[in-house]
Amino acid sequence: MRIILTVSYDGTLYNGWQIQKNGETVQGVLEKVLFNITGEKIKVTGSGRTDAGVHAEAQVCHFDTEKTNIPPEKYKFCLNTHLPSDIRILKSELADDSFHARFSAKRKTYIYNMYISDVILPLKDRYALRIDNCDIEIMQETAKKFLGKHNFAAFSATGSLVVNCERELFDINIENCNNNKDIKIIITGNGFLYNMVRIISGTLLGVSQGRINTDNIDKALNSGNRNFAGKTLEAKGLVLKKVEYTNE
Amino acid sequence: MRIILTVSYDGTLYNGWQIQKNGETVQGVLEKVLFNITGEKIKVTGSGRTDAGVHAEAQVCHFDTEKTNIPPEKYKFCLNTHLPSDIRILKSELADDSFHARFSAKRKTYIYNMYISDVILPLKDRYALRIDNCDIEIMQETAKKFLGKHNFAAFSATGSLVVNCERELFDINIENCNNNKDIKIIITGNGFLYNMVRIISGTLLGVSQGRINTDNIDKALNSGNRNFAGKTLEAKGLVLKKVEYTNE
Repeated sequence: MRIILTVSYDGTLYNGWQIQKNGETVQGVLEKVLFNITGEKIKVTGSGRTDAGVHAEAQVCHFDTEKTNIPPEKYKFCLNTHLPSDIRILKSELADDSFHARFSAKRKTYIYNMYISDVILPLKDRYALRIDNCDIEIMQETAKKFLGKHNFAAFSATGSLVVNCERELFDINIENCNNNKDIKIIITGNGFLYNMVRIISGTLLGVSQGRINTDNIDKALNSGNRNFAGKTLEAKGLVLKKVEYTNE
Repeated sequence: MRIILTVSYDGTLYNGWQIQKNGETVQGVLEKVLFNITGEKIKVTGSGRTDAGVHAEAQVCHFDTEKTNIPPEKYKFCLNTHLPSDIRILKSELADDSFHARFSAKRKTYIYNMYISDVILPLKDRYALRIDNCDIEIMQETAKKFLGKHNFAAFSATGSLVVNCERELFDINIENCNNNKDIKIIITGNGFLYNMVRIISGTLLGVSQGRINTDNIDKALNSGNRNFAGKTLEAKGLVLKKVEYTNE
């Protein structure tokens, strides 16, 4: 029986989604709790990794179990009673055996959160990056360059082993609220390379602050050279917003 | 020389504002850091206490110092370089000797944050209370009963030593966003009794969930009997939003 879980987590205290030799991970905690519930050594497969410190509003994962006495929708309740409060199952449901959290995913949406302030704001800083300033119109205009299919090699952490760096971005929107003090970069695509959202966000911020020339984005997309792109922004501002499995 | 500080803090890890025998407090941390900077044993006076776990977007306090070689506006920078990242000075300025953070305060605004969900949402739960449901229109309608001058004895923690329980509320608004999933109770008054905002919020929630009869509010206000009021909601949802020193 294959079960799909929709999982939300505060990534602050975790060494990312995927099981590592060192440090607690979200996948590791889920597998531990599933073992306690089912007695089975269950492997949980996520839609993709999230890095250390990255959060998820709704990550999706699946697992297989021989257990038939727990109805699929009850895993939500069973897991939540055992999980620490920074990880919660929002939904559990039965899946086709053909469903795969990673390979069946059609679209993912990430949000990068920033706030403008000359000092750290303690009530915002856990989930957003403090910045001194930015020009939202320039960001929104510049974001268009990333839309569509591109080779995003330059917008990926160096040392990544991925061979095919072509990805398609469907949407990039810059939202602002609270008198332009809170800024969100919302990016939807068919998939993302390692650190891709954080580097795209860092590039948009750099352009909007006048530190990076817009032309560098074209150069980066054409050459695949990481040096043309902006810096990788901190993990804490990044949230995996949703994973979609249907083409609307 | 009297200095005013505007301070923001995440109260999660503190035993409230005011110095206690046990546990770290925000006032305690500020006085320790001021001692490191000035070499003086300085007493910091807040606009009022906040309880353990309560946050502040902008608490106000003052202190006196003999030091004249630190310009008042520089305390912001000096303190911030020494403070833990969950406490930050937003502003430091020179005050008249007649200014008193507590006695000069004219209006305070608090926000109580709640979110509707059947499970804990890890990305909201640090600064808001999870509730199953509520009726915002009923809440807003009921809130009117608290406006104006009342004896708020019933809306104060029992055992409080305050004799005069009359306070005046200028404004209570219920704001909702995110498709009515995030609810804020915003209360402005000339002063607040111990736990008053948390008990008023608990009462509004109780009425909107049909657990408390609206008439009980009149009974509570008239009798001063704590039993007519609702429960004291958790500290983590409460934020001191601002303290005002002028009557606009």
